[in-house]
Amino acid sequence: MQAEILSVGDEVVSGQIVDSNAAWLSQRLADLGIVVAAHAAVRDIQSEIVEAVKVAAGCSEVVIVTGGLGPTHDDLTREAVAAAAGAELALDPPSLEHVEQIFAARGIEMPASNAKQATVPRGSDVLPNATGTAAGFRVDIGAASVFVLPGVPREMKVMFEGAAVPLLPKGDGAIAVRMLKCFGMSESLISEKLAAQMELDGNPKVAFLASEGIISVKFTSRAATRAAALGLIEPELAKARSLLGDAVFGDDADTLEQVVARLLESQGRTLAVAESCTGGLVGACLTDVPGISAHFLEGVVTYSNASKTRLLGVPAELFDTAGAVSADVARGMAEGVRERSGADIGVGITGIAGPTGGSAAKPVGTVHVAVATAAHTSHRKLALRGARTVIKDRAAKHALNMVRLELRAQA
Amino acid sequence: MQAEILSVGDEVVSGQIVDSNAAWLSQRLADLGIVVAAHAAVRDIQSEIVEAVKVAAGCSEVVIVTGGLGPTHDDLTREAVAAAAGAELALDPPSLEHVEQIFAARGIEMPASNAKQATVPRGSDVLPNATGTAAGFRVDIGAASVFVLPGVPREMKVMFEGAAVPLLPKGDGAIAVRMLKCFGMSESLISEKLAAQMELDGNPKVAFLASEGIISVKFTSRAATRAAALGLIEPELAKARSLLGDAVFGDDADTLEQVVARLLESQGRTLAVAESCTGGLVGACLTDVPGISAHFLEGVVTYSNASKTRLLGVPAELFDTAGAVSADVARGMAEGVRERSGADIGVGITGIAGPTGGSAAKPVGTVHVAVATAAHTSHRKLALRGARTVIKDRAAKHALNMVRLELRAQA
Repeated sequence: MQAEILSVGDEVVSGQIVDSNAAWLSQRLADLGIVVAAHAAVRDIQSEIVEAVKVAAGCSEVVIVTGGLGPTHDDLTREAVAAAAGAELALDPPSLEHVEQIFAARGIEMPASNAKQATVPRGSDVLPNATGTAAGFRVDIGAASVFVLPGVPREMKVMFEGAAVPLLPKGDGAIAVRMLKCFGMSESLISEKLAAQMELDGNPKVAFLASEGIISVKFTSRAATRAAALGLIEPELAKARSLLGDAVFGDDADTLEQVVARLLESQGRTLAVAESCTGGLVGACLTDVPGISAHFLEGVVTYSNASKTRLLGVPAELFDTAGAVSADVARGMAEGVRERSGADIGVGITGIAGPTGGSAAKPVGTVHVAVATAAHTSHRKLALRGARTVIKDRAAKHALNMVRLELRAQA
Repeated sequence: MQAEILSVGDEVVSGQIVDSNAAWLSQRLADLGIVVAAHAAVRDIQSEIVEAVKVAAGCSEVVIVTGGLGPTHDDLTREAVAAAAGAELALDPPSLEHVEQIFAARGIEMPASNAKQATVPRGSDVLPNATGTAAGFRVDIGAASVFVLPGVPREMKVMFEGAAVPLLPKGDGAIAVRMLKCFGMSESLISEKLAAQMELDGNPKVAFLASEGIISVKFTSRAATRAAALGLIEPELAKARSLLGDAVFGDDADTLEQVVARLLESQGRTLAVAESCTGGLVGACLTDVPGISAHFLEGVVTYSNASKTRLLGVPAELFDTAGAVSADVARGMAEGVRERSGADIGVGITGIAGPTGGSAAKPVGTVHVAVATAAHTSHRKLALRGARTVIKDRAAKHALNMVRLELRAQA
């Protein structure tokens, strides 16, 4: 069972947007045991869409087409797929009613052009759009089952899960994917530790994925059922987890901030953060986690030396003796924010995010992070590389990771 | 002159990564007057790469292939393109020397497998890799000029600019793209105001792009030279700018935080921010701008009521009378952070990011933003929709936009 994904739209082909739909669909189809063999993207030109649909339907049993279902004259996917299928477009009354209701709810009359969004090729299955106006459809072209979905990712995903998945042909068993999320260990060291597993190249297959400082170790397996495929992964996952130790902070979709939030929650502890070079990024990440308000008491972004003294009690003379970017100031910030907020744990971050402000002794990327508890204050000096936003991101992740390790040690 | 972009790699086709190379190349080729007609992505299977290269070379005068130039047995693009060109691979001694030097600089011996990265089809032009080990190349296949570049975006971009661009056939004139970045006006209202321009559908062509709450009005034009193409856009851009007024915050790649930073810089003013539901996001955005430290004095993330009182002087009784999410508290936060920090402008944000914590009177998405200056405090109540991270993002953008409008009014 093989599939192909076709994205339609000038905005994709011209590079105006990066096509994330194709990657998302590939992953979901793999979950369902359907291997995606190719992606393609074509412009809003009817003849080119027709040709691409025919080529894809000639190669693959499943074709997923996204985009070009809007109401304007540039939206040609309905017409093109109908032409490729040799069928006429016909109005689907329930879909029309749905579009009319959406406009009625907005209190405006439906423009005539939107009626087009309720048409599908004769003989096709309608895929209702739960979150928008454009109806999708499924139609046979040769031996292929062709699914046509909207290009708006939110609408596409809901329609795929709710309306397309039940109509997909059954894949050849199931593919399972599990990940170990690692931070603070280099890719080469992880690769060394997992050398034996990497060489397997079997079932499961092990691969690495590095993104924004997080290394994901990805295990992919195939079996008759998803449960069986997961069963093949489990022992290798456990082995890797023990080989990598503390570098593993979570599984699958876990983020550092989610893991920190869970540890704070389970231990009933509170946190406060004093940030300089990260500018509020640690707080912004932590507060992405629902329910964090019970554990994240406060943050201060003390960009100026004066604010470090006034808000955190960092002694002013430290800026002359140790310098604003120093272990002493990071410790002072962590301890100061902890004491003043009454939190169990305080974090202090000071550094040079660049592109200017560095020196030979303290180059751009020098960041000090301190984590203070009632018992002690730990500190790390980081030498980060990259653009300003990269240095901020990595510094914030190191800070979250130090909090994680501190909470684990106290557990 | 038409081009096609082919991305090679299991990681792209399986959805493990989103292919950003194709979009980047499309934009750069458009700048050079070369229209990209299609994207395709294929797996690391030699026969499939050969077929895709032949198909693309049969349709387009320029084909750009990325990915599959690594040293492992999965990297098959060299072999496939050589096969499609009917040429043998041959070692390029300068490229081999380059790879050896890179390994020598790391203090390790070059693994034998890396020598493969210095081979190119006989008769092709070598594209040196300034930032990595894999040599690229340009080869004729039929009437097409086929460029083969690494998949690592950083290496690909440097090789494209430095080595591929000089060898590209001359495009049919130039395409120019300009954008107006808007915030705080709905897409439908923008569309109404620009109705006359939208109908032109000519040269320039006007289109909308909505992303993360920012609406970009995009003008694309074609002419013999880039300067002439820009000249066609200029009067339409000026017309749109005057029709949209204050909703336009910048041009092209501008972000709200950059515009705010520029206004602070040009007026020599300082800012301090008190955030609750945005959790530090305003500070994190502002500090993405280099040099902001001279103008962003401090931020406080006062998640708890107690911290709003202790750090900002918000009267504790307000939490009972008006509630933590109220105009009064937002004003108190903005005025408090302004006074205590000594900044010219203070910002206060309090709201309900969800998914829980809402009520009938104050549903999730209710956010109050206040901006305080020496002269007065302005306030807005927002009713935002979406997931927690979306509500945080939009609230932060509204706050930055209010600061922008305040600074413009004072200018």
